Amino acid sequence: MHTLLKLNCDLGESFGAWHMGLDSEVMPLIDQANIACGFHAGDPTVLVRTLTLAKQHQVEIGAHPSYDDRQGFGRRSVKMQAEELKHLLWYQIAAVDGVAKSLGLELSYVKPHGALYNDMMANPALLATVMQAVAGYHKPLKLMLLASVSAAEHKKLAKGYQLELLFEAFADRRYKTDGSLTPRSQTGSVLDQQAALEQVQLLLQTGAVVSDTGDKVALVADTLCVHGDNPEAVVLVKSIRQLLRGR
Amino acid sequence: MHTLLKLNCDLGESFGAWHMGLDSEVMPLIDQANIACGFHAGDPTVLVRTLTLAKQHQVEIGAHPSYDDRQGFGRRSVKMQAEELKHLLWYQIAAVDGVAKSLGLELSYVKPHGALYNDMMANPALLATVMQAVAGYHKPLKLMLLASVSAAEHKKLAKGYQLELLFEAFADRRYKTDGSLTPRSQTGSVLDQQAALEQVQLLLQTGAVVSDTGDKVALVADTLCVHGDNPEAVVLVKSIRQLLRGR
Amino acid sequence: MHTLLKLNCDLGESFGAWHMGLDSEVMPLIDQANIACGFHAGDPTVLVRTLTLAKQHQVEIGAHPSYDDRQGFGRRSVKMQAEELKHLLWYQIAAVDGVAKSLGLELSYVKPHGALYNDMMANPALLATVMQAVAGYHKPLKLMLLASVSAAEHKKLAKGYQLELLFEAFADRRYKTDGSLTPRSQTGSVLDQQAALEQVQLLLQTGAVVSDTGDKVALVADTLCVHGDNPEAVVLVKSIRQLLRGR
Amino acid sequence: MHTLLKLNCDLGESFGAWHMGLDSEVMPLIDQANIACGFHAGDPTVLVRTLTLAKQHQVEIGAHPSYDDRQGFGRRSVKMQAEELKHLLWYQIAAVDGVAKSLGLELSYVKPHGALYNDMMANPALLATVMQAVAGYHKPLKLMLLASVSAAEHKKLAKGYQLELLFEAFADRRYKTDGSLTPRSQTGSVLDQQAALEQVQLLLQTGAVVSDTGDKVALVADTLCVHGDNPEAVVLVKSIRQLLRGR
Repeated sequence: MHTLLKLNCDLGESFGAWHMGLDSEVMPLIDQANIACGFHAGDPTVLVRTLTLAKQHQVEIGAHPSYDDRQGFGRRSVKMQAEELKHLLWYQIAAVDGVAKSLGLELSYVKPHGALYNDMMANPALLATVMQAVAGYHKPLKLMLLASVSAAEHKKLAKGYQLELLFEAFADRRYKTDGSLTPRSQTGSVLDQQAALEQVQLLLQTGAVVSDTGDKVALVADTLCVHGDNPEAVVLVKSIRQLLRGR
Repeated sequence: MHTLLKLNCDLGESFGAWHMGLDSEVMPLIDQANIACGFHAGDPTVLVRTLTLAKQHQVEIGAHPSYDDRQGFGRRSVKMQAEELKHLLWYQIAAVDGVAKSLGLELSYVKPHGALYNDMMANPALLATVMQAVAGYHKPLKLMLLASVSAAEHKKLAKGYQLELLFEAFADRRYKTDGSLTPRSQTGSVLDQQAALEQVQLLLQTGAVVSDTGDKVALVADTLCVHGDNPEAVVLVKSIRQLLRGR
Repeated sequence: MHTLLKLNCDLGESFGAWHMGLDSEVMPLIDQANIACGFHAGDPTVLVRTLTLAKQHQVEIGAHPSYDDRQGFGRRSVKMQAEELKHLLWYQIAAVDGVAKSLGLELSYVKPHGALYNDMMANPALLATVMQAVAGYHKPLKLMLLASVSAAEHKKLAKGYQLELLFEAFADRRYKTDGSLTPRSQTGSVLDQQAALEQVQLLLQTGAVVSDTGDKVALVADTLCVHGDNPEAVVLVKSIRQLLRGR
Repeated sequence: MHTLLKLNCDLGESFGAWHMGLDSEVMPLIDQANIACGFHAGDPTVLVRTLTLAKQHQVEIGAHPSYDDRQGFGRRSVKMQAEELKHLLWYQIAAVDGVAKSLGLELSYVKPHGALYNDMMANPALLATVMQAVAGYHKPLKLMLLASVSAAEHKKLAKGYQLELLFEAFADRRYKTDGSLTPRSQTGSVLDQQAALEQVQLLLQTGAVVSDTGDKVALVADTLCVHGDNPEAVVLVKSIRQLLRGR
């Protein structure tokens, strides 16, 4: 049962001369790589390098598109028209899809990045636009989004677009009772290694986590989001990998 | 025999709020649309709009990738590593390919833009890199390049990559005796309507054009490059279309 | 008294190969040029060209900074930290200031562009940040903003920063009774030539305009915003110039 | 005499979420900070942060402008028109100048970056354009360039523009007998700590360095270029600082 929970990680976030993330150390430990598409991070060369690494470790790949905001790393909301956003998503997905295919890989899902991810979870109209964009792409791709108390509603909405969803939980983020994440600005929102491991263990054993107010929050997740930004993060991923076994 | 010569035109060169080109007027007149990929011109929304127009008029589509140079409209040479250029081309081709497919269109060729086109025609190592990039893309795409006295050599090179070529001639540019174009900076390098029409007629009848020094230059071309920048240009395209019949 | 009302216009909005606006036709008709700084429009060469034109016609110059959003022409709100916005404004103001000085011109004011302008008028905290940025620049620059029912409040706030304000009214936009502009999406929000001229005349004669609901809205304005996007717009500017006399 | 040789270092090369360089460790050790202007590296916020650090340590500041090439970190040559380059340089210098002044700092020199620096040293017409740009800026700024066998010629050229020069030598790069640097691609082009220190000592004692072929190359330098990219580089800067005393 454990091995059913996958590990996903944001990768390919270097840009030009700027290095970010320990991609080559974390890639062997994960199941799903969310690959930056060049709008918040990544560039054509970084993309090829990251996809090559994913291929080497047989990691499933997803496009990780964002708002057009390189300086802000896609963490700043940009108010866009729905159609415009749909085109922006297609462009980014297509770029990763075609390059991946040329390297012998198949893109299998899409996970929006940063502010776009948060906005989509907070704004049903935006989520509908994202779903339409992914469902309208020329080949079936799943959409990865936050496992939350709205999961049933999200599934229903997705069904209307014949879109398959992947629900993710966060290993190292403190949850609120409503199933959303406590904002990074809040003290205690990012868990330390020990607390993160405990949260994962609890999730595996009970299908729930404990919120910032001490309540149990049930989460049905397909995949767990982990990070590869620094050596400590990689150590945590290794520990979580051992818990899950698999790979 | 006339109808074998196709008309190609650079399109989708608007960007954001900036409009460029009479795309909707010229699209019905041409056979092949070279579509900007977002690096010298175009953006995701312009791309969708242009592809939609191509679909409506059943025009064959090609990716029109360039150096990463929006301010310079891809007319400035950027000295790049071969691998880096290959990745840049894949990225741009993939973006157009995947968006096109999502609109029900199939990308069929690649024509490099501006300085990249000129550099490729002048520098065999660069041409080899471009050929490798196009040949290495995950599906067969033709490469459009200048019909010149080096055509046989180019064909041989392409054969090594199992790459099919499309040779293009220019309706409105004065040729040099070696089959290259006289530089735009030279007086008389761009032909007026009458001279352009005569050049096309001569090419159709004799398979040759007359160079700036009065010599005959044999050109075996698959397609003729025309322009849709302004109303006069569109009038010329209409006249050429009538000469060629077809469509 | 008439000649005290100045005319201001957004200029320098071309970018690279993309042309926008009839700058050379409208520059002789206006008093104040709001010059794009390169983040929503303009580039270093367009900037020099526009400043040179302003110098030739002895037009007062202002920096017209925006969010970092070239594709969206600065019309999309970007959620930024206050400090980050302040730095963004300084950078843009400084670029125009130093280039202007090198051409023998003195920058005298700042008018935020597009979404930044609208956000600033709607959000007091953002307006405070903009005021701090302009007031903190190394030389005194005025801030141009919308003449509205909040003018007294805005003056008081500005006084705290020792910042001088320039209030602008719009010739061709329909006002709401609260002194704000009706959104462009609303029918009738942009006035035709005749209605715009009448609105200007009424403003000159009575110091007020008539709102979309027929109410009188008093506006104390230093300057009138006009447009130079197309030939019709330029005709309107000529008519308004005649009303105002001066120049 | 030792203290007459200054230390300069490229700083402010982070961009958005991407960190580069140990700016806060190397700033206290140097005399002159070459500050990225936002076109190859840096952004408005990084600029403010770097200038604030320079002020804190009373370090002289120079603008470090580049080609418009963020992905390539300004290391790729872009073929530009002379006028266009002049405008690009003004824009970047102005941005740093005005922001610096707003923080209470005075810009004092310009050092072109990367490919622009190399191109300028190799191409007299380009050097002339750079000199014109810097000399044409509205306040006197020195131009920093490579101390080479052409120094006398460069001085004469600069005198024609009433431009003051700062000649720099490299601590850790192997020279060729003609006074140029061996390309980075060549083995041994970058000296290890010991060799770099010896090269600095020799330069201080004899006013010359030893070339890759063992010849003595006389170099009259005002400043020594050092690097702060990593901890080892900072250790070298500390050692050089001790050799030079001062600060």
